Amino acid sequence: MNHEPTKNDILTAAARIKSHIHRTPVLTSRLINEMIGAGIYFKCENLQKVGAFKFRGACNAVFSLPEKLAGKGVATHSSGNHAAALSLAAQMRGIPAHIVMPRTAPKIKVKAVESYGGKITFCEPNQAARESTLERIVKETGATFIHPYNNYTIIAAQATAALELLEDVPDLDIVITPVGGGGLLSGTALTAHYFTKSVQVVAPEQAGADDAYRSLQTGTIQPSVNPKTICDGLLTSLGSLTFPIIRKYVTAIYTAEDPHIIRAMRMIWERMKIIIETSSSVPLAVLLNGKLSAQGRKIGIILSGGNVDLEKLPWNQ
Amino acid sequence: MNHEPTKNDILTAAARIKSHIHRTPVLTSRLINEMIGAGIYFKCENLQKVGAFKFRGACNAVFSLPEKLAGKGVATHSSGNHAAALSLAAQMRGIPAHIVMPRTAPKIKVKAVESYGGKITFCEPNQAARESTLERIVKETGATFIHPYNNYTIIAAQATAALELLEDVPDLDIVITPVGGGGLLSGTALTAHYFTKSVQVVAPEQAGADDAYRSLQTGTIQPSVNPKTICDGLLTSLGSLTFPIIRKYVTAIYTAEDPHIIRAMRMIWERMKIIIETSSSVPLAVLLNGKLSAQGRKIGIILSGGNVDLEKLPWNQ
Repeated sequence: MNHEPTKNDILTAAARIKSHIHRTPVLTSRLINEMIGAGIYFKCENLQKVGAFKFRGACNAVFSLPEKLAGKGVATHSSGNHAAALSLAAQMRGIPAHIVMPRTAPKIKVKAVESYGGKITFCEPNQAARESTLERIVKETGATFIHPYNNYTIIAAQATAALELLEDVPDLDIVITPVGGGGLLSGTALTAHYFTKSVQVVAPEQAGADDAYRSLQTGTIQPSVNPKTICDGLLTSLGSLTFPIIRKYVTAIYTAEDPHIIRAMRMIWERMKIIIETSSSVPLAVLLNGKLSAQGRKIGIILSGGNVDLEKLPWNQ
Repeated sequence: MNHEPTKNDILTAAARIKSHIHRTPVLTSRLINEMIGAGIYFKCENLQKVGAFKFRGACNAVFSLPEKLAGKGVATHSSGNHAAALSLAAQMRGIPAHIVMPRTAPKIKVKAVESYGGKITFCEPNQAARESTLERIVKETGATFIHPYNNYTIIAAQATAALELLEDVPDLDIVITPVGGGGLLSGTALTAHYFTKSVQVVAPEQAGADDAYRSLQTGTIQPSVNPKTICDGLLTSLGSLTFPIIRKYVTAIYTAEDPHIIRAMRMIWERMKIIIETSSSVPLAVLLNGKLSAQGRKIGIILSGGNVDLEKLPWNQ
């Protein structure tokens, strides 16, 4: 897909992935509502297959490939949720997924990709090695490179999480999503733009890695350099395809500090009994720190993922 | 209510509590299905208010009290989920809840009851002290004693979890629930009896605390004496009201050992991204240890609760 997703592209993605994904529940917590003084609706993409919204994009990319191309497989460089998501989507279509990972990647992530049938090629842990290794594999196999977020087919599918949320709770005032590379945020912003009259989309960012905030302020993509944050899912910079959408349709970006993020994470674990990543805790953190005024409003939050090392919980460090 | 719940009693309970409880989701895991070779449908009562199915029973008990009695409040002795559930249900109706707790109860449980507005009276940590303290409070206040499970109004409401599960997945072969005092198990068995033609209800029990197993074998209630298990929600013995129902309508009880229970618990946390108690892990444990043959069947599991001390996870001990 070589154009910004249209309303129809999002509906097509939704229909294409529907039978492959989980329709994730929308949960609420009386206590969190009372604490914030608002109605908060959590769209639980942590309960999505592979434990992250990334499976929506991966599915759309894999299942929209024409038969002939698909046979040669897909490829990506990623050590995170996208690699696992692409591996599972490819396995479901019965095609190979080639994953380039730095040889220093955590074992838990290597195991996840392997368990979904991804074929891993290890490389040196730097950007140049990742790119040259990927290029070589694409050349050798004819696999289609699927970028984790800077890809319109991916963006159109990430938009479907908000679409489902709005089906379940049509009268939201605001939707908040985390922002890393901007796939989920740009998709969510497109859904609000096409399918609602006035839903605002905002994003929270960790104070130690506020490249999206700075990008919106300056009007050009600011790189994420030496980010300092506990949210390892949000280290990437915005992409050339996600940034223009975010610039057009996202109302504001707020920042949160790590202590608020950990407090928000623990609150969701303890009160809602669901497992979310640090990255998914940032939206609630900006409500807890009061930067986004929520009083009396209906707010949707997309909980982006639940892949956590249970041996290393931030409150036990 | 002074008779075994009828079909209509269960429907009345469902209607009475509907607007107060969460309609909890039914989740599935592709990986767990593949591992067991069956279709497993998890009814997530860990995501219920107060983090446990107990809120259904407490709500039914509180909201079925006639106005005049209700004004005097409710009372119970419990240090677990029932105390928290009764406190919240009472708070929602605007009546007092008197909770008798041993002075040795974990702080986390005391705090939970307090956060829901329960009025705690501490007593010595033995059964005689609990009972005499409760009796005194009931005499002084006129509050209605609500037993955690040996109460037909409670049983009728615990039956509604399986009712919702069967609405979502009508063609189940088996439903498995944990068994402590037997409120959830007897309610589930009644639902299967009244609303299905052939759904079997079975219960798993920890090998170190198999009083329900022994009770079914011998035909009389066997006490739970010095139980050795990590499942602190399942230490109680069956009740005089729950046992006859279980004897009539429960197909079988299977036992599981602690290592299988911990493995099942961790699998659900890691793969499904939800927080469950050790007690809720026992149903999956008896599928993992092969005692209950599940091959090719559709199996519902009621995940009873999610109240866990996040500082003390069994795999970090």
